[in-house]
Amino acid sequence: MKHFQAFQFHRVLLFAAALVLATQAHAETDPLPSWNDGPAKQAIVDFVKSTTTKDSPQFVPTAERIATFDQDGTLWVSHPIYAQVMYCLDRVPAVVKAKPKLAKVEPFKTVLSGNREKIAKLSMDSLLKIVAATLTGMSVEEFQAEVKAWLATAMDPRWKRPYTELTYQPMQEVLKYLRDNGYKTYIVTGGGQDFVRVYSEETYGIPPEQVVGSALGTKYAYDKSGKPFLTKEPKLLLNDNNAGKPEGIHLMIGRRPHAAFGNSTGDRQMLEYTKADDGARLSMLVLHDDAKREYAYGPAQGLPTTKVGTFTQSLYDEAQKQGWTVISMKNDWKRIFSFEQ
Amino acid sequence: MKHFQAFQFHRVLLFAAALVLATQAHAETDPLPSWNDGPAKQAIVDFVKSTTTKDSPQFVPTAERIATFDQDGTLWVSHPIYAQVMYCLDRVPAVVKAKPKLAKVEPFKTVLSGNREKIAKLSMDSLLKIVAATLTGMSVEEFQAEVKAWLATAMDPRWKRPYTELTYQPMQEVLKYLRDNGYKTYIVTGGGQDFVRVYSEETYGIPPEQVVGSALGTKYAYDKSGKPFLTKEPKLLLNDNNAGKPEGIHLMIGRRPHAAFGNSTGDRQMLEYTKADDGARLSMLVLHDDAKREYAYGPAQGLPTTKVGTFTQSLYDEAQKQGWTVISMKNDWKRIFSFEQ
Repeated sequence: MKHFQAFQFHRVLLFAAALVLATQAHAETDPLPSWNDGPAKQAIVDFVKSTTTKDSPQFVPTAERIATFDQDGTLWVSHPIYAQVMYCLDRVPAVVKAKPKLAKVEPFKTVLSGNREKIAKLSMDSLLKIVAATLTGMSVEEFQAEVKAWLATAMDPRWKRPYTELTYQPMQEVLKYLRDNGYKTYIVTGGGQDFVRVYSEETYGIPPEQVVGSALGTKYAYDKSGKPFLTKEPKLLLNDNNAGKPEGIHLMIGRRPHAAFGNSTGDRQMLEYTKADDGARLSMLVLHDDAKREYAYGPAQGLPTTKVGTFTQSLYDEAQKQGWTVISMKNDWKRIFSFEQ
Repeated sequence: MKHFQAFQFHRVLLFAAALVLATQAHAETDPLPSWNDGPAKQAIVDFVKSTTTKDSPQFVPTAERIATFDQDGTLWVSHPIYAQVMYCLDRVPAVVKAKPKLAKVEPFKTVLSGNREKIAKLSMDSLLKIVAATLTGMSVEEFQAEVKAWLATAMDPRWKRPYTELTYQPMQEVLKYLRDNGYKTYIVTGGGQDFVRVYSEETYGIPPEQVVGSALGTKYAYDKSGKPFLTKEPKLLLNDNNAGKPEGIHLMIGRRPHAAFGNSTGDRQMLEYTKADDGARLSMLVLHDDAKREYAYGPAQGLPTTKVGTFTQSLYDEAQKQGWTVISMKNDWKRIFSFEQ
């Protein structure tokens, strides 16, 4: 009997060893297959190893493994126009239908005209009027349903695909690689928090509660039957750009990230804040230098920059000075999109 | 060889079966040992079973399992005075030491006098001045260090124990029971978000990013060496009381909870909001009716209520009408604190 027990124990050990080996084999496959070998890929792998290896002097406990990602231009295409701006413009006819008087009022008149040149020249003030009219005044559930319906049919004009398919495959791999190593991944976007939350889980595997973005207030009230609901209000609670990014991270997460990814001046302070504390800290900037496969804009390109959020020469200089790693789309990424096989 | 493989496979199966049995045995021990049998305990167990059993018509996917808990009076003792108010009062001497002129200015003069009767009568306006002076003007790291130092020495006058030991053991069990069943547990407190985040992980197993509370703004700036930091500002971003609770939940979590726990009128809207959607929804109210083991205040008691956040008769009536379950500390809880063995 004793012999039998020993044998049984031996079997169990073998089974456990097989499990361990299988896990190791899995871990040794390349977690970033869409990246070319180079300093950017190496920086990511080194960061993960040094913060998750038990005996490493830069080991970070699981609870503190926070990584933040800008969205527009960092996780998906934002050029030449942000998807959410397209959403707001596309919603204008429905808003005017509900309030016909607006048809004769600017900036709604210009949007309805369809004159692209004039629309592109709308001032920030005009855009804010469109934002208020299209993003507020409805219940949060109505808003979510409207965004979902739009995402199901809207197409990027260049790729003729839904916006949610235009995420960068190499960044999707970074998100997964970090999560597989115990990191909580957050989106920290200048875009609308409620907008991004509608698709973040399906598109990036990031649940709504891990999306920090520019946020409007809501108002609690009751419908006729006494049922409570929240209405989206034209009151800006958090402008999640520039200094608003570290401020938003403190408000919504309450911990400093160990890794942050951005692509524009709007991400500058988040990258500074992430890099400024002790231990291994990874700050990375996506440089759009691939005119053929995506777009080229920014310091070295001499090409038009996006209206909001620019990769300027001074940002590039700060990256060099502060030890942030610049990701060249052209050189570091084997492929850009998952549909490019 | 074939026979050996079959035998090996058989061993593996046995091992797996043993694991499953061990798990089941564990699951069948009472997850709420500090609760007496009764409608409150039953409501919690029924809720968890109906939302986590695969074939249940009320099954909730793991990602949507959100439970929110008020803190003061729901998770720990808040009577006769909130711990955070004690913190602010205790910090006044240090604030006056740094700015000696304040010694002659109200309300600081009254606080320094130590006259308890007068301090208890300070107006909300005076308290806000004390809050601004003691909770703002320092970096977020300095504030965290100050709160930590205070918690290590401050004692509740009745139990002569640190405030963090005065959590309700039955509620700690509910937190753990829900987490063991895939729920994300959040604190949604009218108290200061930054204050509660200092001890939430150690005290309740709730990480900072799952604490929603009344929140002041921060301001991003650089020190002399160019290092960025955040300063706490006297600007209220979120008043997380009453309607502010569902509004804060939408801002910080973006999903409606399936379960919510409170104890006062400040929690009314959170409980309404939680209960108002489809599927299994649990709204519970802790009634302080145990004058001997803790305190008795509220509708049936005819005893003094706490200054902020009251369990009124109208709240009690709404609980009956809306199907919220009232937890009687006296009848439902076998013991109140973990140190009562």
